[in-house]
Amino acid sequence: MRVNADRLNRRLEQLASIGRDPRGGMSRFAFTPAHAEACTLVAGWMREAGLDPFVDRAGNLIGLGPGDRPALAAGSHLDTVPMGGRFDGALGVVGAVECAQALRDAGVKLRRPFVALAFADEEGNTFGTGCLTSRSLTGELPDEHMQTIRDRDGRTLADRIAAWDCPLPRRTPPALGAFLAAYLELHIEQGSRLHAEGLDAAAVTAIAGISRTTVIFTGRANHGGTTPMAMRHDALWGASALVLEVRRLALASAGGAVATVGRIEVEPGSTNVIPGLARLRVELRSGDEDRLTGLRGEVEQAAMLLAHEYRLEVRFDPWDHMSAVPLDTRIQTMALDSASRQGVRAISMPSWAGHDAKNLAPHLPVGMIFVPSRDGISHAPDEFTDPAHLALGAQILLDVVLQLDQHLASNI
Amino acid sequence: MRVNADRLNRRLEQLASIGRDPRGGMSRFAFTPAHAEACTLVAGWMREAGLDPFVDRAGNLIGLGPGDRPALAAGSHLDTVPMGGRFDGALGVVGAVECAQALRDAGVKLRRPFVALAFADEEGNTFGTGCLTSRSLTGELPDEHMQTIRDRDGRTLADRIAAWDCPLPRRTPPALGAFLAAYLELHIEQGSRLHAEGLDAAAVTAIAGISRTTVIFTGRANHGGTTPMAMRHDALWGASALVLEVRRLALASAGGAVATVGRIEVEPGSTNVIPGLARLRVELRSGDEDRLTGLRGEVEQAAMLLAHEYRLEVRFDPWDHMSAVPLDTRIQTMALDSASRQGVRAISMPSWAGHDAKNLAPHLPVGMIFVPSRDGISHAPDEFTDPAHLALGAQILLDVVLQLDQHLASNI
Repeated sequence: MRVNADRLNRRLEQLASIGRDPRGGMSRFAFTPAHAEACTLVAGWMREAGLDPFVDRAGNLIGLGPGDRPALAAGSHLDTVPMGGRFDGALGVVGAVECAQALRDAGVKLRRPFVALAFADEEGNTFGTGCLTSRSLTGELPDEHMQTIRDRDGRTLADRIAAWDCPLPRRTPPALGAFLAAYLELHIEQGSRLHAEGLDAAAVTAIAGISRTTVIFTGRANHGGTTPMAMRHDALWGASALVLEVRRLALASAGGAVATVGRIEVEPGSTNVIPGLARLRVELRSGDEDRLTGLRGEVEQAAMLLAHEYRLEVRFDPWDHMSAVPLDTRIQTMALDSASRQGVRAISMPSWAGHDAKNLAPHLPVGMIFVPSRDGISHAPDEFTDPAHLALGAQILLDVVLQLDQHLASNI
Repeated sequence: MRVNADRLNRRLEQLASIGRDPRGGMSRFAFTPAHAEACTLVAGWMREAGLDPFVDRAGNLIGLGPGDRPALAAGSHLDTVPMGGRFDGALGVVGAVECAQALRDAGVKLRRPFVALAFADEEGNTFGTGCLTSRSLTGELPDEHMQTIRDRDGRTLADRIAAWDCPLPRRTPPALGAFLAAYLELHIEQGSRLHAEGLDAAAVTAIAGISRTTVIFTGRANHGGTTPMAMRHDALWGASALVLEVRRLALASAGGAVATVGRIEVEPGSTNVIPGLARLRVELRSGDEDRLTGLRGEVEQAAMLLAHEYRLEVRFDPWDHMSAVPLDTRIQTMALDSASRQGVRAISMPSWAGHDAKNLAPHLPVGMIFVPSRDGISHAPDEFTDPAHLALGAQILLDVVLQLDQHLASNI
């Protein structure tokens, strides 16, 4: 059974016409008229595919297939970043609807219901929190939170949704355990690896955890001329050595982790004054929680050793930590098998960016499929994935749905 | 023959009462009422010491001793930085007057005239240019420049001096070659070396040259999560490695040079974005011009090698270069001999900061004597030098004047 590549691409084009930003790309934010328009368009496709569309209390569009057992779900999100691309989110939504349509076209009836999901606010544009509305499905977006979280104009999430002029019916889906048996998300990689290595797809092993801190070295500000080199306590020496050490530690993980120092500041910041203070923002990511926490410890230890070496003090802001979330290994195998049967080259890799899948993964089997992003460009108007790879991703998604329908039948 | 330590200290106290800043220390700027008051006070001491005080076209106070051969001059400057200390500049002025007074008290008549100098604007507070008014003596401050250089209120140097209400006579000294045979400047070190090493004085070998540039590394800004470590072009990697390499090169000079990276900026400067650009401000100083230019080349070469290693581009702003100025070696020997005769510990060292001496040194024999600064603090209200070291410095100054009077007699 095959997805229809032409239909998939045509629908992605149609969706990309909604929420266009005159500066380039799309700025399609949750709970705006563009979001309602996108929901209406997708809901129409859902009906065509035999799904019953409605909007839940958090603005997520849900297309429910017939049946009363916990469903196999696939989807992604409809919102974009400002001046975003046409595939981030959209591919997973249109791909899910395509699976339903392909099943219907082929007259195949699954043992379980199929559900297509289109989450409202994944990018965090409106309330500053990424992967926000998918939490409604897991019960982690209580009414109190919806009535306190506010956008930059001071409006609450509850108010925004109440005021949102979307013509679709509003319903509340069942509690997660009774509602869904598994969740699949097709997405562009948003990184350069698949494209650079000439690969066609990836089964995602985990959503990388992210640990961030600010490291502050303090030395002694002093005259840059009259202070002998051997008597200096230059905070930038320790900070520079830590930048290189953070790099070395991440490289030593051989792909298991990445680390970035994206900000550095020194004080007082004058040409002829030795920096008395240096502040570094360190971000670590890994799909393996143990590796992530291990790396954190290594960075701390390195900073302390370097502080000693350069005769500085060092302190850390508390780490801001989002744990790594492993995805279902059976689904990874099914996705790699599908790629193999189609004769394309697929690998396993973590997702270095966050996705709604991470909210669902602690509760049910969850899998993600990546297709290449040209030059790794995403969150930009020139985000691009080859149409053949878009269709390949949807085909793998469909294959996994079929496999899961067999495999999960007796378990849940 | 001995200087009078009590008188020297008392006069420094008196001078420190002029131009006090309510926030602490002194803010005694050129061509202000406080400057006129300081000139008047010092001119009174000059007269007591048998010198004839007048002010030149650039506001420098000159106390001329009797005689018609090229003179032996000593001095420093009367201005301070904002909230400056009581010894930077003042010591050299009061020390010079003390030499004249000690000679007079002892009834010693030199072969050459003695001149005490009190320069008007060394710190560059008013016109943003350090060691400005001493250039009038060397002919390097032409009328056109005095009529174009402006303070922050738009007034020219010529206007400021014309409007300056100072009761002293104004005269023009002879051209430098006919006027002065040598210049000596007693100064506090303004660094920590003498104090830290328990030394009492230094003969200054050179005024360090200063070379400054901005180094700009460019890489590629990219997502800090999805870009594999091996595919990054992180501008901060090159910049950090250069900070450490600049340090290493300066340390390798074993005291012959210092180097400071006092400013660093990255762009775009976001936690989860790989820096695409890093900008470093590099300052090099050395008392040895060859070493300074050599170090410049080494820094450039290191930056280019590091750019290659980290797959970056690198470029340099044009170097802003002030050459190192060697001081007279005979005077250094005289100063060290004086210290040795007095049983104190003195060394030779460059001056890492600029002084008016550097303007005169290309034209005539020039020497500087340093005494310790407690903890290297200068340009601050808590600048401090032990009274015994203040008197020691003045004694060495007097000894060198006596030696020079013998030594230079037949030469010039």
